[in-house]
Amino acid sequence: MRTLITNIGELTTNAAGSAAPHHAVQDAAVLMEDGLITWVGRADEAPGAEEIIDAEGRAVIPGFVDSHSHLVFGGDRAAEFEARMAGQKYAAGGIRSTVAATRAATDDELRARLRGFLDEMHAQGTTTVEIKSGYGLDVETEERLVRLAAEVTPEVTFLGAHVVPADYADDPEGYVDLVTGPMLEACAPHARWIDVFCETGAFSVEQSRRVLEAGIARGLAPRVHASQLGPGGGVQLAVELGAASIDHGTYLTDDDVAALAASETVLTLLPGVEFSTRQPYPDARRLIDAGVTVALACDTNPGSSFTSSMPFCIAVAVRDMGMTPAEAVWAATAGGARALRREDIGVIAPGYRADLVLLRAPSRIHLAYRPGVPLVERVWKDGVQVA
Amino acid sequence: MRTLITNIGELTTNAAGSAAPHHAVQDAAVLMEDGLITWVGRADEAPGAEEIIDAEGRAVIPGFVDSHSHLVFGGDRAAEFEARMAGQKYAAGGIRSTVAATRAATDDELRARLRGFLDEMHAQGTTTVEIKSGYGLDVETEERLVRLAAEVTPEVTFLGAHVVPADYADDPEGYVDLVTGPMLEACAPHARWIDVFCETGAFSVEQSRRVLEAGIARGLAPRVHASQLGPGGGVQLAVELGAASIDHGTYLTDDDVAALAASETVLTLLPGVEFSTRQPYPDARRLIDAGVTVALACDTNPGSSFTSSMPFCIAVAVRDMGMTPAEAVWAATAGGARALRREDIGVIAPGYRADLVLLRAPSRIHLAYRPGVPLVERVWKDGVQVA
Ligand SMILES: [Zn+2]
Ligand SMILES: [Zn+2]
Repeated sequence: MRTLITNIGELTTNAAGSAAPHHAVQDAAVLMEDGLITWVGRADEAPGAEEIIDAEGRAVIPGFVDSHSHLVFGGDRAAEFEARMAGQKYAAGGIRSTVAATRAATDDELRARLRGFLDEMHAQGTTTVEIKSGYGLDVETEERLVRLAAEVTPEVTFLGAHVVPADYADDPEGYVDLVTGPMLEACAPHARWIDVFCETGAFSVEQSRRVLEAGIARGLAPRVHASQLGPGGGVQLAVELGAASIDHGTYLTDDDVAALAASETVLTLLPGVEFSTRQPYPDARRLIDAGVTVALACDTNPGSSFTSSMPFCIAVAVRDMGMTPAEAVWAATAGGARALRREDIGVIAPGYRADLVLLRAPSRIHLAYRPGVPLVERVWKDGVQVA
Repeated sequence: MRTLITNIGELTTNAAGSAAPHHAVQDAAVLMEDGLITWVGRADEAPGAEEIIDAEGRAVIPGFVDSHSHLVFGGDRAAEFEARMAGQKYAAGGIRSTVAATRAATDDELRARLRGFLDEMHAQGTTTVEIKSGYGLDVETEERLVRLAAEVTPEVTFLGAHVVPADYADDPEGYVDLVTGPMLEACAPHARWIDVFCETGAFSVEQSRRVLEAGIARGLAPRVHASQLGPGGGVQLAVELGAASIDHGTYLTDDDVAALAASETVLTLLPGVEFSTRQPYPDARRLIDAGVTVALACDTNPGSSFTSSMPFCIAVAVRDMGMTPAEAVWAATAGGARALRREDIGVIAPGYRADLVLLRAPSRIHLAYRPGVPLVERVWKDGVQVA
């Protein structure tokens, strides 16, 4: 069936080759067929279709590509959040409570929770989501987490090296042996990506290198959590190994920025983290002006960022990271696609997947101009309406 | 018909007389009948009912009382917002563009827009909204605005003294004569409240006094916009005249805080304004600790705060104004009711109106813990489901 969305007041295509990369088209239409976009052009030149959707002058954007999330876990940490907001220090045991609840949960409990998050994300315009393991921290549970994630997305990341678990507190190298050995063997068949939290207090640069190289040898592609809490060698390591993305990146030296700008590695900013932990915001303006490719993602997780709202992240990125609304929308769509090395999503042009969002607003600017307001009216993924 | 909401995991009642004013009740149920709440208690002691709604352990809170909004206007100012976010100075002509668009709009155009905002607010849990005029600034249009607002809420505020219009730029006293004379005569029959923007660049303390006293003489009750952009005499004037609320209050002297704490005047904070203008946040902690009654509202308007999301305002108040989640929810419900001098809403107890929100979350904490996520599952106003 051919479905035409017409009378689009403002269409964000992200199409390459445009003089203005964030250019939006007025009075446009988009044709979808068999899950793909097959035509984009002026509304008054649109071809016929079996189904016609009248956008009534509202805006259409590509579906959000949320390239960083942790959605398979048990429990929540509302009390820890409340304590942190009241000024109490970050509870170090926090992540361990999630690990305990995750290990104790059945597959079906984790599946039901995961399905709830996906429904919630669809309703907010997200059509592609990357999901990491990392709350199992033993071979059996990590294997479960990547297996459950693979049931719902191809973008599965093995993050056994999320944190050193309590039982390896005195033997972090032994834990890296486990992650790069039997845990990787069990998880790699379900995953596309290998990730590591390269940060003081988590894994050193040398440990991170071991993890990433073992993953690469096993056929996984690298991505890295780094420079969230302070400067470190994670960015240079990520660039050296050709990582698709480094995520967080609040504390970057000028050398880090130059290395990123000269590389194919995307920097993925996670505004929900800084919002929910009151940490300083990274300076997206500096990065974009230096030529770094920037993506936005939610980092949905029960500890440091429990939002799943890409519109919220756009609003914060505009207010607090120095991005324009157009740049933030690009980063949340095409930027996410780059961070996942995907060439079939994040763009509205013939041949791309029919992942689109109709906004209840005349312009993408409203995503920042109207923070918190549910502006996502309809969502299509592979041409099928999912919200 | 009797409707019982049962298996409520966490019920926020705001009931007076409790040792802990922000106390939440576990495992509760609420009975609604003929638009009122008729019973509140433990789920296992609940009476029978014709309709039973299973909350499945989720949280229920009172409907939000949004005591400050500007919903009757034409046009929007997305381009101005975008320019401001890019670091350009506040465009002084901004409000005048809204006045021009509002004067040019038909009643039905304004009604359709207003209805859209109300639907949007209901979907986000707001069950009572105050609406101000102030984008007409001539007798005919101001009268239209209060009349249209009165079609949808009893909480209508005449704010002819929003700003001095262009045609009175050289004669502000003449504009005050108009506001306190023929404009007040035309608007008072449709309004409950009189309001003025008492701020350098808007109306002086003496002009504000004239406006408020004229409104009071005409049977309206006072409320005041003050101390948004700098300290001033608006707070003391509001307290002296027994205003229900002063709104904004970013710049308060210790004397202002002491006067508020000793009064019945509520201080209404508007986090969307500071978020959307990058102005400094007022310190709610200081106010609450001093004994001031604090409310939260959206100030929905096309210039300085186009959010209509009380959950978003709660999240920002917790992050940036020093409120606990429980205090912020109280301020957005019972606090708003106090700011409107309403004794029938904002509380879940027998005899109050059946205005309730079922959250898609186990606790009210999630409103701050999960910023931007649409967590409002069902909403009842006067016992009727509106979202
Ligand atoms: Zn993460
Ligand atoms: Zn206002």
